[in-house]
Amino acid sequence: MIIDRLWARVKERGPICVGLDPSEDVYPPGFGAEFPSPAEAALRFCQEIAAATGDLVACFKVQIAHFEALGVDGLRAYRDLLRQLRGEGHLVIGDAKRGDIASTAAHYARAHLGGEFAADFLTVNAYFGFDAVAPFLPYLESGEHGLFVLVRTSNPSAGEFQDVPVAGRPLYVHVAERVALWGEPYRRSSGYSLLGAVVGAGREVLAYLRPRFPSLFFLVPGYGAQGGRAEDVAPAFREGNGAVVVAARSVLAAHRGKPAPLEGFPRYAREAVQAMAEDLAPWLR
Amino acid sequence: MIIDRLWARVKERGPICVGLDPSEDVYPPGFGAEFPSPAEAALRFCQEIAAATGDLVACFKVQIAHFEALGVDGLRAYRDLLRQLRGEGHLVIGDAKRGDIASTAAHYARAHLGGEFAADFLTVNAYFGFDAVAPFLPYLESGEHGLFVLVRTSNPSAGEFQDVPVAGRPLYVHVAERVALWGEPYRRSSGYSLLGAVVGAGREVLAYLRPRFPSLFFLVPGYGAQGGRAEDVAPAFREGNGAVVVAARSVLAAHRGKPAPLEGFPRYAREAVQAMAEDLAPWLR
Repeated sequence: MIIDRLWARVKERGPICVGLDPSEDVYPPGFGAEFPSPAEAALRFCQEIAAATGDLVACFKVQIAHFEALGVDGLRAYRDLLRQLRGEGHLVIGDAKRGDIASTAAHYARAHLGGEFAADFLTVNAYFGFDAVAPFLPYLESGEHGLFVLVRTSNPSAGEFQDVPVAGRPLYVHVAERVALWGEPYRRSSGYSLLGAVVGAGREVLAYLRPRFPSLFFLVPGYGAQGGRAEDVAPAFREGNGAVVVAARSVLAAHRGKPAPLEGFPRYAREAVQAMAEDLAPWLR
Repeated sequence: MIIDRLWARVKERGPICVGLDPSEDVYPPGFGAEFPSPAEAALRFCQEIAAATGDLVACFKVQIAHFEALGVDGLRAYRDLLRQLRGEGHLVIGDAKRGDIASTAAHYARAHLGGEFAADFLTVNAYFGFDAVAPFLPYLESGEHGLFVLVRTSNPSAGEFQDVPVAGRPLYVHVAERVALWGEPYRRSSGYSLLGAVVGAGREVLAYLRPRFPSLFFLVPGYGAQGGRAEDVAPAFREGNGAVVVAARSVLAAHRGKPAPLEGFPRYAREAVQAMAEDLAPWLR
């Protein structure tokens, strides 16, 4: 049961999820020139980061947009990266945030859970309501796959629609209620459902949602480079589990301003994960 | 100015947008066996449909999910199809419904407006609010690209979140207001903005939105196989323009129950478009 495996990883290694978002913005100076294509550079960069941090993380989150921007070659690199990471025993979240009407969602489900781009978990957008999520559910029956549904995101404009008051409560609470309801049949032995929620680093939002939705495992973006601090993500946890916290840029670009970034970037990434683990530790007890 | 070109196409040819959603569900019996891969079959099917209907339509909408389900080969077919259709002078909507935080959305914008998968128009999901739409806007400056932002979709569960009452009005009205506001700087000579809206076939919703949002060009799914009738899409128009109506399955699978479907499917698709044009004509005056 994939959600129980994620829970066990958090228990064993802590709640860090390294976000693999490759781009020239985060490469060390000089990186990439030796590869035949930008897609190959992206793949190699992620492989290096994963090799340097894999034993410290609960899971990896791979952002497909960064590969999609590189075209067909980029998507081949995305596929190969997911295959490799999962083959090595890592848990992988495909961060695609897909969402469409049911007949279309069935194709996305096939692509990202059953097909060539299969991940352990997929992020989905539920603006279409339940019937857009339903086509993903058959892939959850085996227990081998899970979803994280967007509830409350971490970006500055998140509140523009997500916080609009609905019957006195923000819309995202309404969404969380539905996600918990949809996920009830998929609760597993850890107590968490195979349907989890994306909830951005924000102290008040997390503190409100955590006790009210005990079955929802949280995928928490927004720590580090996006501005979230340890105390902002702390309320996501229950007994030190039930959530993974994403760090991407703060890990990938940890070489910034350091000596020998090109040679040292994997080590700097590892040190950044270790520093993050120390930063979070007091809040996990 | 791409929105003015779309307006001119509607004026010249009527408001039909054929949705290219290839899958075994819509292929005639026996189709596909002669091609080396499912991706090649999807590409060829779409090419045949486009060749048979291209002079009758305002634009094509290509559903990327159907190609994504076929993996890397599928996305190569998507790329090649868009390049071919645009090269032939057709207007093409890339139906990807992407949406993410700004730094990620910038990669999607690069992929689908500036890069290998470039379309004339792209559908986007605005659940993240304005900052997730902003990275697409630089591609609109030249006038060569436009967006259709999800406002109200056509699926049975659409109302679950989109219709929740916000200050006495459904959420989708709130979204439409923002889209119109964001799009104000992008109004072009036809009076329509390069930022349009996806609004499903529904008489009441369209009748409410059309007079209130004169700058929004509507992309209207839901006609035909999804249940929408001509009178349900009629309120989308203003003087017979300002909207395109999508038909996919009703055109792609028009061969069902007809003689010689394998040889005749392009002709049946053409006849289905012609029948749809006749069905809509009384409502365009």
